[in-house]
Amino acid sequence: MKSFSRLTRGLVGQPMFKILNEVKMMEAAGRKVFRFEVGDSDFSADPHVIEATRQALTDGHTRYVSSMGIPELREAICDHVHETHDFRPNVEQVLVLPSNSIIDFAVRCTADPGDEIIYPNPGFPTYFAVASYLGVSSVTVPLKEENDFRMDPADVLARISDRTRLVISTSPSNPTGAVMTADEAKSMAAIVKDKDLYLLSDEMYYSNVYGVSHSSPTIYDECKERTLLLNGFSKGYAMSGWRLGYVVGPSDLIAKMGLMFETVYSCLPPFVQYAGIAALNGGKSFLAQRLLRYKALRDCMAEGLNSIPGVSCKAADGAIYLFPNIRGTGMSSEEFASFVLREAGVAVVPGVYFGSAGEGHVRLCYLREESLIREACDLMRKAFEKRGISNEY
Amino acid sequence: MKSFSRLTRGLVGQPMFKILNEVKMMEAAGRKVFRFEVGDSDFSADPHVIEATRQALTDGHTRYVSSMGIPELREAICDHVHETHDFRPNVEQVLVLPSNSIIDFAVRCTADPGDEIIYPNPGFPTYFAVASYLGVSSVTVPLKEENDFRMDPADVLARISDRTRLVISTSPSNPTGAVMTADEAKSMAAIVKDKDLYLLSDEMYYSNVYGVSHSSPTIYDECKERTLLLNGFSKGYAMSGWRLGYVVGPSDLIAKMGLMFETVYSCLPPFVQYAGIAALNGGKSFLAQRLLRYKALRDCMAEGLNSIPGVSCKAADGAIYLFPNIRGTGMSSEEFASFVLREAGVAVVPGVYFGSAGEGHVRLCYLREESLIREACDLMRKAFEKRGISNEY
Repeated sequence: MKSFSRLTRGLVGQPMFKILNEVKMMEAAGRKVFRFEVGDSDFSADPHVIEATRQALTDGHTRYVSSMGIPELREAICDHVHETHDFRPNVEQVLVLPSNSIIDFAVRCTADPGDEIIYPNPGFPTYFAVASYLGVSSVTVPLKEENDFRMDPADVLARISDRTRLVISTSPSNPTGAVMTADEAKSMAAIVKDKDLYLLSDEMYYSNVYGVSHSSPTIYDECKERTLLLNGFSKGYAMSGWRLGYVVGPSDLIAKMGLMFETVYSCLPPFVQYAGIAALNGGKSFLAQRLLRYKALRDCMAEGLNSIPGVSCKAADGAIYLFPNIRGTGMSSEEFASFVLREAGVAVVPGVYFGSAGEGHVRLCYLREESLIREACDLMRKAFEKRGISNEY
Repeated sequence: MKSFSRLTRGLVGQPMFKILNEVKMMEAAGRKVFRFEVGDSDFSADPHVIEATRQALTDGHTRYVSSMGIPELREAICDHVHETHDFRPNVEQVLVLPSNSIIDFAVRCTADPGDEIIYPNPGFPTYFAVASYLGVSSVTVPLKEENDFRMDPADVLARISDRTRLVISTSPSNPTGAVMTADEAKSMAAIVKDKDLYLLSDEMYYSNVYGVSHSSPTIYDECKERTLLLNGFSKGYAMSGWRLGYVVGPSDLIAKMGLMFETVYSCLPPFVQYAGIAALNGGKSFLAQRLLRYKALRDCMAEGLNSIPGVSCKAADGAIYLFPNIRGTGMSSEEFASFVLREAGVAVVPGVYFGSAGEGHVRLCYLREESLIREACDLMRKAFEKRGISNEY
């Protein structure tokens, strides 16, 4: 008999894509929308990277390659990790694949249905989406605003059970922008060692830190025993459309994830992988320039948000987001997002999309032209001032 | 406690990649290898397609797009199916993703662990690899050489049980090149309707048929009720490195597969998708020219193979492979593959890699320069003639 499988019932997708579709409909209807919902840069990738992709196509890098990634990119990743994390992994510890699928593959290779994984709340929605459709139990760690939304290792420890298989930490954090301290990274490494667990360290935004240092729990076992370093090119290098990421981890687990990638996808396009090499080799000045620009935009948006009645915003230490407290408006995060989309044409993501502990906040990506940020914050402020008078909401 | 999940035990990957690695090592050691093992063309993609990919990069199509595929490509696919299959699907019936993952997603969305799927033996190894790691039971239909390796619908019917959820048919066939007749397509459609099952019609090689017509079981329900049409750009358009494919199916099932793709992958690179539009829009004369060329290469290789003592080869009606009977050599298919790799520097795939019923055969892809085909067949013939005298094997 024809039916859907059980796991289809747990498929929830990524809530961001729902907003994306709503916004596209408004735009198609002629409405100007200020887009702060998508976690992507308005500024394009490095021209050098685009040209490297074009050149790889011309050079005929258009056929099947190894499922693990082309050797040149894997070596370049080893060198890059050496620079950023002060240890050089073996090439067998590196697998090249889209960052989003790293989460899925890491969970599927370490946890069975009914097992538990631990991750932050609020957190990147794919953690929940993956656990949901796989039938793996989500145990979440509430992040506290009074701790600047940093995940407290003691809160992780308190949630570990016999069923726990994997802990996910995220620094810098999506959606809050919080950056783990060196002490916290050390504690996380000690906890997973003591409890003999895997740790997926999601460092997708590692290059976006402002005036603080990036710390990683992976440096203690050098990804040889239990830690997995997740990274990718979408955020730092503004290469979201390339769908290129990588994971560094224990070679036996990486081999399993590689077999899974081979089974499901065969391999990634080689010309996409050559773009990754170009980004790593030529990326330092690009990243430094972007970081300066992004910091100014962050400060501009924080100032604009703080001018809105009922909204209070700290400039987060990392990532590409602000996560203002909107409780003073008296609205829920979904009400706030609906209100500013309708009344100001500004798209933001309700904090509750990132987990229950995200309520009372919304997420905005500030990698936009400064003039757009100013205009959007003005429009939101005016919408709330008008509402204050008419009390219509 | 840290451990791998149960499903990692079933991960077998694709055996072709093992040969690929072996060959690369021989080549690295300075040995010339005639590569007939990879199911890929030695001839490059249409320059028009490469240029379209390059142009899309220049035009800034480098950001997140809809998980279902960009609307322009989905519409172009609807038009294309209209031309090739005489029905036009709705755009909601179309999902763009790598062809290999269509197999994984179709099985995961229709079958639970312990359920059964039916597919041909010999068949594309990913069918087995996917069933294996998911814990879904494989029920295989032996293809008979006396039936020119076409899957007999009566053999499928005889294997359907209460646990059957999905049937996979492949035409033209990998590895045998067999092409389903119109009557067989009609019977397959009737069987899955009668038994209320899903049918995944793998038509990856639909454009590679020589002097016969391509028939599809999907035309009876127009992919609205139970049939899924799998296709891609790797084979017909020589675009293996783009990793671009699509599936047309019932809109509710396609929505589930789309949610799965969104959860695991987010989306495919937009510049890769623009290449697909270019291929579909400008591909007719390209396909026609290639087909003429491929037919000549097929005939050349069949002639060469038939000159080898103990080898007997029919020129298959479709796909890009020959699947000669090598029983007359007295070797198993793995022994044959090892022998010709070592003694003649020719890489082929043992038939048994495609399932037990592939024993006694090997697979060769003939999309190579004619001179290479002649030279390789000569070397294999000489190796077997020498062996015949020395009897050393």
